[in-house]
Amino acid sequence: MKGKMQGVTLVADWDPKPDFMLGSKDIESCQTYLGSLVWRKPRLEIREYDIPTPGPNEILLQVKACGICGSDVHMAQYDDDSYIYYPGLTGFPCILGHEFSGIVVEAGKDAFDKHTNRPFKGGERVTSEEMLWCGQCKPCADGYPNHCERLDEVGFNVNGAFAQYIILPARTLWSLESLADVYQGDDIFLAGSLVEPTSVAYNAVIERGGGIHPGDRVVILGGGPIGVAACAVLKKAGASQVIISEPQEERAKMALKIGADFAINPLKENFADRVLELTDGMGANLFMEATGLPEVVYPDIERVIWEGRTLNSTIVVIARAEAKMPVTGEVLQVRRAKIVGSQGHSGHGTFPRVIDCMADGMDMTHMITKKISLEEVPANIIELQTNRKECKITCLIQ
Amino acid sequence: MKGKMQGVTLVADWDPKPDFMLGSKDIESCQTYLGSLVWRKPRLEIREYDIPTPGPNEILLQVKACGICGSDVHMAQYDDDSYIYYPGLTGFPCILGHEFSGIVVEAGKDAFDKHTNRPFKGGERVTSEEMLWCGQCKPCADGYPNHCERLDEVGFNVNGAFAQYIILPARTLWSLESLADVYQGDDIFLAGSLVEPTSVAYNAVIERGGGIHPGDRVVILGGGPIGVAACAVLKKAGASQVIISEPQEERAKMALKIGADFAINPLKENFADRVLELTDGMGANLFMEATGLPEVVYPDIERVIWEGRTLNSTIVVIARAEAKMPVTGEVLQVRRAKIVGSQGHSGHGTFPRVIDCMADGMDMTHMITKKISLEEVPANIIELQTNRKECKITCLIQ
Amino acid sequence: MKGKMQGVTLVADWDPKPDFMLGSKDIESCQTYLGSLVWRKPRLEIREYDIPTPGPNEILLQVKACGICGSDVHMAQYDDDSYIYYPGLTGFPCILGHEFSGIVVEAGKDAFDKHTNRPFKGGERVTSEEMLWCGQCKPCADGYPNHCERLDEVGFNVNGAFAQYIILPARTLWSLESLADVYQGDDIFLAGSLVEPTSVAYNAVIERGGGIHPGDRVVILGGGPIGVAACAVLKKAGASQVIISEPQEERAKMALKIGADFAINPLKENFADRVLELTDGMGANLFMEATGLPEVVYPDIERVIWEGRTLNSTIVVIARAEAKMPVTGEVLQVRRAKIVGSQGHSGHGTFPRVIDCMADGMDMTHMITKKISLEEVPANIIELQTNRKECKITCLIQ
Amino acid sequence: MKGKMQGVTLVADWDPKPDFMLGSKDIESCQTYLGSLVWRKPRLEIREYDIPTPGPNEILLQVKACGICGSDVHMAQYDDDSYIYYPGLTGFPCILGHEFSGIVVEAGKDAFDKHTNRPFKGGERVTSEEMLWCGQCKPCADGYPNHCERLDEVGFNVNGAFAQYIILPARTLWSLESLADVYQGDDIFLAGSLVEPTSVAYNAVIERGGGIHPGDRVVILGGGPIGVAACAVLKKAGASQVIISEPQEERAKMALKIGADFAINPLKENFADRVLELTDGMGANLFMEATGLPEVVYPDIERVIWEGRTLNSTIVVIARAEAKMPVTGEVLQVRRAKIVGSQGHSGHGTFPRVIDCMADGMDMTHMITKKISLEEVPANIIELQTNRKECKITCLIQ
Repeated sequence: MKGKMQGVTLVADWDPKPDFMLGSKDIESCQTYLGSLVWRKPRLEIREYDIPTPGPNEILLQVKACGICGSDVHMAQYDDDSYIYYPGLTGFPCILGHEFSGIVVEAGKDAFDKHTNRPFKGGERVTSEEMLWCGQCKPCADGYPNHCERLDEVGFNVNGAFAQYIILPARTLWSLESLADVYQGDDIFLAGSLVEPTSVAYNAVIERGGGIHPGDRVVILGGGPIGVAACAVLKKAGASQVIISEPQEERAKMALKIGADFAINPLKENFADRVLELTDGMGANLFMEATGLPEVVYPDIERVIWEGRTLNSTIVVIARAEAKMPVTGEVLQVRRAKIVGSQGHSGHGTFPRVIDCMADGMDMTHMITKKISLEEVPANIIELQTNRKECKITCLIQ
Repeated sequence: MKGKMQGVTLVADWDPKPDFMLGSKDIESCQTYLGSLVWRKPRLEIREYDIPTPGPNEILLQVKACGICGSDVHMAQYDDDSYIYYPGLTGFPCILGHEFSGIVVEAGKDAFDKHTNRPFKGGERVTSEEMLWCGQCKPCADGYPNHCERLDEVGFNVNGAFAQYIILPARTLWSLESLADVYQGDDIFLAGSLVEPTSVAYNAVIERGGGIHPGDRVVILGGGPIGVAACAVLKKAGASQVIISEPQEERAKMALKIGADFAINPLKENFADRVLELTDGMGANLFMEATGLPEVVYPDIERVIWEGRTLNSTIVVIARAEAKMPVTGEVLQVRRAKIVGSQGHSGHGTFPRVIDCMADGMDMTHMITKKISLEEVPANIIELQTNRKECKITCLIQ
Repeated sequence: MKGKMQGVTLVADWDPKPDFMLGSKDIESCQTYLGSLVWRKPRLEIREYDIPTPGPNEILLQVKACGICGSDVHMAQYDDDSYIYYPGLTGFPCILGHEFSGIVVEAGKDAFDKHTNRPFKGGERVTSEEMLWCGQCKPCADGYPNHCERLDEVGFNVNGAFAQYIILPARTLWSLESLADVYQGDDIFLAGSLVEPTSVAYNAVIERGGGIHPGDRVVILGGGPIGVAACAVLKKAGASQVIISEPQEERAKMALKIGADFAINPLKENFADRVLELTDGMGANLFMEATGLPEVVYPDIERVIWEGRTLNSTIVVIARAEAKMPVTGEVLQVRRAKIVGSQGHSGHGTFPRVIDCMADGMDMTHMITKKISLEEVPANIIELQTNRKECKITCLIQ
Repeated sequence: MKGKMQGVTLVADWDPKPDFMLGSKDIESCQTYLGSLVWRKPRLEIREYDIPTPGPNEILLQVKACGICGSDVHMAQYDDDSYIYYPGLTGFPCILGHEFSGIVVEAGKDAFDKHTNRPFKGGERVTSEEMLWCGQCKPCADGYPNHCERLDEVGFNVNGAFAQYIILPARTLWSLESLADVYQGDDIFLAGSLVEPTSVAYNAVIERGGGIHPGDRVVILGGGPIGVAACAVLKKAGASQVIISEPQEERAKMALKIGADFAINPLKENFADRVLELTDGMGANLFMEATGLPEVVYPDIERVIWEGRTLNSTIVVIARAEAKMPVTGEVLQVRRAKIVGSQGHSGHGTFPRVIDCMADGMDMTHMITKKISLEEVPANIIELQTNRKECKITCLIQ
């Protein structure tokens, strides 16, 4: 397909800090696994590109919807020395955007649709994983693509979806066709753009957290998009009580709308006391740390586990943070508890199951509090540096 | 507590068939693990008893509700030689009734309430497991009370709950207090009397079947009370599609009301074709055989697994049957499938989780299609020998 | 690398039986998933080939050792109508050989060594999976490469390792370097050629069978190479009693040498009685059906489970067979047992773990009862059609 | 059985510290869950007792061997204010001793032998769990006896086995008969007295740690009896590399003798560097913290996980300690790792499996470095307050 397209592009200067050393997978002046140690003076530009051509295992996607993620915000945000906030894999200039959906326009000769196990015909409505796991390294061969040793990431070091078109490998695409019965018009694409963040939550609580038994109790700490999505997933999984702890009122309300049964404002009430009260002294089977302040919240989680009567509690740590959690081994021992870390959204059948949940009525589109055009993306990314009231701002592309 | 009470009592004659040999746990003229080889001429009588006195680890329960189970029917039903249908553990005469709830009246000095970890005060609303696992044998010590080697069963070889009062060990009691917010008046006892059959279903699909991931698809074959309860449990667990296969119209409707999304009448349509059609060629993650006709339905299950694209399917066999299932190993190999058997409802946190599901809105009381008094129990047990339209007939005791 | 090489090539005629229909993945006159319905008049020829050139993700391997597998025998064996025995994926003419090891000679630019996460340098000693899973389809993306929907198989439909050189994708290679401490000279390659069949056994009992707890008891039915390898793996895993059931004396002795503690000759003694006697009435935690006669042996397995006191037994079906197993659901119910099927050896960290077991002293090279040259391969493949005394015949290539 | 016996009795004064409050399960002047806050001036006395009489579910055991445990030492050891070191459940005066074996002398009418599912005959050689789980509370009913809410402990708050006779409930006894083939004379009792500590290790690494796959690598930090036993259990389970980290030379040697492949002296070499070197940069699948200094060793464990290439590492915390572990969530996330706590040895089939491992050659008796008589027990308990060279001192009773 010939033609031009616009892409919301992040541009920054390669200017490594004194202590930065090029890692084994970094490429001088181009890509790094440690973004915040290298990139300075980020700026967002809408640039014009040739529409790209898919390789043999790839497809060309016409993007229909793409949400803004916190990492988009942090890539464009910078500290006093002008270094970007985002600490991870980055390669600039790069079109941003990794929570998206669209329509298959063109497919390489070896690109197969996992939904049909046949070649793409064009016209398929799909979403994609953001993580382009290589499928070749030891973690991929062993079944752990979220821990791929040669990872690329859409919208971080390869061009993303704040654009009319995007190239993707067929292996990370997932069909949205089953949503056609429950969503009308563009809503299927809005829902589709939420599969990626919902899959991050699903991977955390179901795959890494081990899931729950119907009737179990859960507590989510932090009402950002992942925390809110976890409320929906765990309510779907049969939690009898889903408790969200979140000081921001709009976020707490969103969690209650999406799946939580109770909200705690940890700045206004004692978190541990309140959880024990709500659960009649039982505590919870699963906790998700999604605040990014583990050193603050972990002691409270621990008190609920210690004083509650529930054995076998799992604490899933999903938010990234540098601070150490002060963990008392005895609590894990006496209460038979465990702590797991979670990252990613790929593999383990997660994407198709999230889509099947949506096809059965798990409606995440409530999370979209604002819809914008492609031109409005840069301003909204900047706006989200300070505005914590929006849950998800999503770009619709005609 | 002094006084008299009525009990619906099954009386039968000890008259072993020629090939019967007293087993290691049988007791001559009194108890056997193989009821249908021994007991003749069953009859139901309402007899008068002294209200019993609890031992140190026991409580006296005032019964409020008790449902009729298929095994009650089979104990009172007999073949051409007058031998009872029911093939399992039995000791007559015995008051029947094992799906029940009531109020704690009196407690022995060592009887503790698991809900509070304190002695009973009296007045607690509770239900009980039917299986009085011994807590001493190897399976019990290893954590498998459903496979207790020295089992007693309420309403089979120890007196049951079609009576005003019943004695129970404290260890098998579970509090219904959390249901007080969702049920008014006697409805808490009606719900409570359904915890036992629902726990049989929960144990089958969640504990033995390994549960499901939210978004998975499931098929239940057979719409008796356990099959219907499984529909509710699996919908609660996040199944995106719950399919019931049942030829009897009333039963299929009940399943749809309680949790199923689709019903198949296997006498009028091709089961395998229909499942593949409803699931868009995917098949299902979990199948429950609850028809008692495994030799008939297994080949159909196998075809869905073979032709469907779902890997890792689990087939849970819950109905008892003498017929062999003709299993093709290659289907289990190519589709990474497995077959498990399930029995019982005890242990593994099942009872309290079922109650917590009910407290969160899983309303099983729709299953009760008829309410009766204690005096009407014998006639209704007989009636159910032929009537397959009722789902659950429940006795309310004032 | 320029030059010529010899390859032991299976040639056959494409002559579909009347009832054969080209499947979705078959290719007319060339490849099929149902070999025995299509290929006639197989013959083994040593043909000359150009040494092939690796693509970007591939390597060129100098083969050092390659064992003969039963499927090699069945591809060259034919029935009364001249159709081959082997029923699976095949594409002829094809160089046979899929249990092998060798030295990396040349690598494409994108071929990485999973052992180092760096490009190959040449000289690495490696083995490979036989299954060339695509890494793109739904089963691969979900983590189940043994169930790849677009599978190629080395030595079945792509050229195999009875040749001086072979081309392989880097993703299926595994380093043998850790064996250098325990094997001298060519023995590292002999050991390496046994990683594939040992991984089939490991995948069956550890991955699909769920492994065992140290101290558990196991029974292997069938002393072919996979059954024998399973004895070694399960003894390594801590089985307190490994029992092999095998009528052929040489095979039983091999199993005892490799890891079994006891051998049963099921033609001379009652299998079930003997297992119960050896285990002091406990039965076993894991059974592996590797005879190919499930209709014969399953009732015996069932009797051990029924009469033994062990709960939670797992029956792993690894041998392919058309006959149905007559399964009594009640045995699975009362004994909390399950049946699983197993195929393949890929994924789940199996290959590297098998190699690590070998590095720790699990010596499979005892299984090699005869070493031959490349020229002798055709005659030995024919010989194995009738000779059941050899365990593994392995070709060493200088 | 009539007569007198001696018992090594710990006597102490009930003298609660100012901040001590009687807990819900404590009994004034008699029993407490917080020993070190209450008991002062401990002294060991050999007192004379009547031989006790078993209740209906109990047996009378003639003790043959009993080992000294670290907790025996800590009960008799006191701080500057004369309070005992041991912080847990205690009720004095009490005969000490909880790692023991002996011969059944007399049995109550309801006491069954789990090994035969029949009444005891007398003469059975058995060992016992130390934890007398109640079998009635919620954790027990759910299958978690190590977390019993109404626990008694042999040798802590009920009379123990440093005596000629002891009373025990039948449900915690396990047969040693299968050891009769591998041990002669009293050695069966010496082995039997080690089942309890070995089961603590087994519960930690196999039950709580989830076990390992054959070929996995493991690191044990701390070479006390539990750490040493874990080396044996993990080698039995197929670990390809068992690494012990222990500064005391005698302890390291014992670990190497019992099952470890490599020893690290963390005071003389860098622990993390050495583990990465020994494992060729892989790190380990399982770590067991058995030092009691988690704040010291956890950062090192974390570095091995971070720099090693192994995913899914499990850290099992078995030693009790008050210090916090400084846990970096990102390490758990990036490496897919988890932390679990472990306590106890009961349930989950652990005791019989440990005995079956011993029957298959896992010889723990090497751990016994000194054998003593009953009269010598008090002096040796005192001796162990300072002597760290002995591994296990065991009392043989004629």
